[in-house]
Amino acid sequence: MQALSSARCEACDAHAKPATAQEVNHYMPQLPGWQVIRHDGIDKLSQTFKTQGYTRSMSFTNAVAKLAESSDHHPQMIVDYGAVTVIWWSHKIAGLHKNDFIMAAKTSEVF
Amino acid sequence: MQALSSARCEACDAHAKPATAQEVNHYMPQLPGWQVIRHDGIDKLSQTFKTQGYTRSMSFTNAVAKLAESSDHHPQMIVDYGAVTVIWWSHKIAGLHKNDFIMAAKTSEVF
Repeated sequence: MQALSSARCEACDAHAKPATAQEVNHYMPQLPGWQVIRHDGIDKLSQTFKTQGYTRSMSFTNAVAKLAESSDHHPQMIVDYGAVTVIWWSHKIAGLHKNDFIMAAKTSEVF
Repeated sequence: MQALSSARCEACDAHAKPATAQEVNHYMPQLPGWQVIRHDGIDKLSQTFKTQGYTRSMSFTNAVAKLAESSDHHPQMIVDYGAVTVIWWSHKIAGLHKNDFIMAAKTSEVF
């Protein structure tokens, strides 16, 4: 089976199907450190990456932004002095799509 | 009186005095769009700046990070596709110091 980190995002529109509970349970063991959180009624994938200070936080933030631009799928990022929290979800379906699990895996690789 | 945006941050340690209510009331009219929020029992200065997309969000984030490094005072930043929220407070005193009002004014100038 293809690793999530080497899969490619598919175009996602408002009619795309959200990930099922079975799919979520299948993907999560491939994503150490990631958690499904529920925020404003929307399921999201979140991980806080500890860094060695602001310069490192910013270089990681820029690397994830570059990954986001290349995939045309963009996370929320919370930049702190010694940590960056990356949060993926699919705005168009207000929930989690396979794309988000792919991007989470790629984010961990970038880190 | 010196404009906040042209003032310089002073070194701030755990014994520095937090801004008084009177000082907050004095500074806030100089900071359009900024709000004092209370989060985890800590007063913070927050503003959400709307942007024209992720590239613009990232360029603003990098500009604020550069300002932060030059002042050795670092905000939390929440990067979204079409907005960046910048949140200033002084970790060492777990609250607001004059430095935070200065940095908020400089942030608005950068934007």
